[in-house]
Amino acid sequence: MRIDGKRMRTIWLNPDGWSVSIIDQRKLPHLFEIATLQGLDDVARAIEDMAVRGAPLIGATAAYGLALGLRDDPSDAGLAEAVARLAATRPTAINLKWALEAVSDAVRHHVPHVRAEAAYIKAAEIVEADVAVSRGIGEHGLSLLRGVVEANGGNPVNVLTHCNAGWLATIDWGTATAPIYMAHQQGIPVHVWVDETRPRNQGAALTAYELGQEGVSHTLIVDNAGGHMMQRGQVDMCIVGTDRTAANGDVANKIGTYLKALAACDNDVPFYVALPHTTIDWTLARGADIPIEERSGREVTHVSGLSSEGKVTEVQVSALGSHGANPAFDVTPARLVTSLITDRGICAASRDGLLSLFPERAA
Amino acid sequence: MRIDGKRMRTIWLNPDGWSVSIIDQRKLPHLFEIATLQGLDDVARAIEDMAVRGAPLIGATAAYGLALGLRDDPSDAGLAEAVARLAATRPTAINLKWALEAVSDAVRHHVPHVRAEAAYIKAAEIVEADVAVSRGIGEHGLSLLRGVVEANGGNPVNVLTHCNAGWLATIDWGTATAPIYMAHQQGIPVHVWVDETRPRNQGAALTAYELGQEGVSHTLIVDNAGGHMMQRGQVDMCIVGTDRTAANGDVANKIGTYLKALAACDNDVPFYVALPHTTIDWTLARGADIPIEERSGREVTHVSGLSSEGKVTEVQVSALGSHGANPAFDVTPARLVTSLITDRGICAASRDGLLSLFPERAA
Repeated sequence: MRIDGKRMRTIWLNPDGWSVSIIDQRKLPHLFEIATLQGLDDVARAIEDMAVRGAPLIGATAAYGLALGLRDDPSDAGLAEAVARLAATRPTAINLKWALEAVSDAVRHHVPHVRAEAAYIKAAEIVEADVAVSRGIGEHGLSLLRGVVEANGGNPVNVLTHCNAGWLATIDWGTATAPIYMAHQQGIPVHVWVDETRPRNQGAALTAYELGQEGVSHTLIVDNAGGHMMQRGQVDMCIVGTDRTAANGDVANKIGTYLKALAACDNDVPFYVALPHTTIDWTLARGADIPIEERSGREVTHVSGLSSEGKVTEVQVSALGSHGANPAFDVTPARLVTSLITDRGICAASRDGLLSLFPERAA
Repeated sequence: MRIDGKRMRTIWLNPDGWSVSIIDQRKLPHLFEIATLQGLDDVARAIEDMAVRGAPLIGATAAYGLALGLRDDPSDAGLAEAVARLAATRPTAINLKWALEAVSDAVRHHVPHVRAEAAYIKAAEIVEADVAVSRGIGEHGLSLLRGVVEANGGNPVNVLTHCNAGWLATIDWGTATAPIYMAHQQGIPVHVWVDETRPRNQGAALTAYELGQEGVSHTLIVDNAGGHMMQRGQVDMCIVGTDRTAANGDVANKIGTYLKALAACDNDVPFYVALPHTTIDWTLARGADIPIEERSGREVTHVSGLSSEGKVTEVQVSALGSHGANPAFDVTPARLVTSLITDRGICAASRDGLLSLFPERAA
């Protein structure tokens, strides 16, 4: 997608053929900065510190991290250490585990001195595959938006989204946003209610930013407001992403998603979850078993933004001496999800629904 | 209640016998400042700008505003103008209307030159009555907390609250917090999950602050987190306040309350609304008719806090060019409310429930 009118992706291999560049998303939307990752530690820190975030992008970045690690130590022990280091960065997103396994499987049978090269090839494949997956989600989801606009007599479809499941969370297009961008490009009128998404404000900082850069009409709201908007008939559908989908259709996504799903259910607003097949954890029978990352309470007590002097500044919003708890994700039960929008099509949020699109997973 | 160990109220008449002082709540928790209100305009601005906020405190402040206005112009026209000016400051809280009517009724039959004095007397009555009402809510609600602790084998009762329905929203004790403070004073172990309450962060800035000043155990969470906490069994009950209660038990409260009520219902967590009888609007059959204040989108895009240099600073959290929508309240339907905790006792959130405590309102 575009930044300042220029087409970009969120991660790319540099012309040197080994270092990798990313958009440092911690600085957005106030500063656009590119960071170069030159080794395994750079990559692990970029994921931990959320310079890159979003389940698909975490997976792709970790794949390059393994390639960089194998450049330094291509032995079996080096591979195992690099996998362990990267796997420990974020516990909830399943794509991370998936990407590390995909790269490991691609390099393990090679002799050490060609492993790094094989890893770079696999990482590039993961990146291209992710773009195709996002495009697939967009194409399938587009019909849902078009349907509302047709039923509305051509009035804009109002979509509520939570957090950033946009192109900044992937390589291009996004997951939840892919149908929105495709609708916009095809002239289908769409307006997006953007949840701020405390505590890290990915909605305010990233989703609003990328929608603005693409010229998509949007309005920022606090996380508290979505239920009221739905009560007032101002939301036609919700589309969110997911960091891990259990085999029964339960989804783990950014904290607060569950509350929006409850409100959607209570107001008969369709609640869609957009996901690449890589976020499905077929080994987990239900969402309650998904590990939920606990992050620092400081993310709750402090907020970062642009000061009136134009500097990115952190301020403490809470009373001194009050501490914060910070679970980063919650689980939305499948019963609250209208449908899953995957790269293979749209299905019910259930084991049967998922198996209808992924029959090869039937035991 | 206490600030720095010293007992205080949120509003008081100064020794000069005419000017009124308030705690300027816009500066809390970072700066404790007292503001003096010397005329009608000072009062109207203090309410509009939320130097004072909270339905009961708005009512009491407006009562003094009318007294100050009548000092300058005690004529019938002056009274009508002052009522109109103050009534326009905040549309949702019914206590404002109630207090203006109470003072008007108390002064209207007097000749102009004694009206100001009569208004001061009535305002003082409203203040004292509010303290008694909060105490009543606390005494009735206390049994609910004690019951959980007894059932838990003496473990702390975990209460989730939204926004600030604490003593800073009233004159003393608070509404939702009154049972909490009474429990704490009686040695009943209580821990409070404090919702941050975007966009104005009254939970982080005020509720956490006042609980800390009283030594009540509490943890700050983002508004997104409460549903997850309830799914995990970490919340024994919710207690919130209300700005207006319809005659059928629907409640308007700070935006986001509805989402917590949905989560409480979905997880069998009791959801209580604490309210003084002055917030009941007997003329409104249902909550959907309550006017919902729309505030500036700037409250969504900008956040105020304490910088690392110790200055209260405002930062912009959103992307430049993205605008915010800012409905300040939402309506929680009575079906999601376990019980109402009033100064007259606890009742079902229904017309019959309310009439059982307020039989004089039966038509």
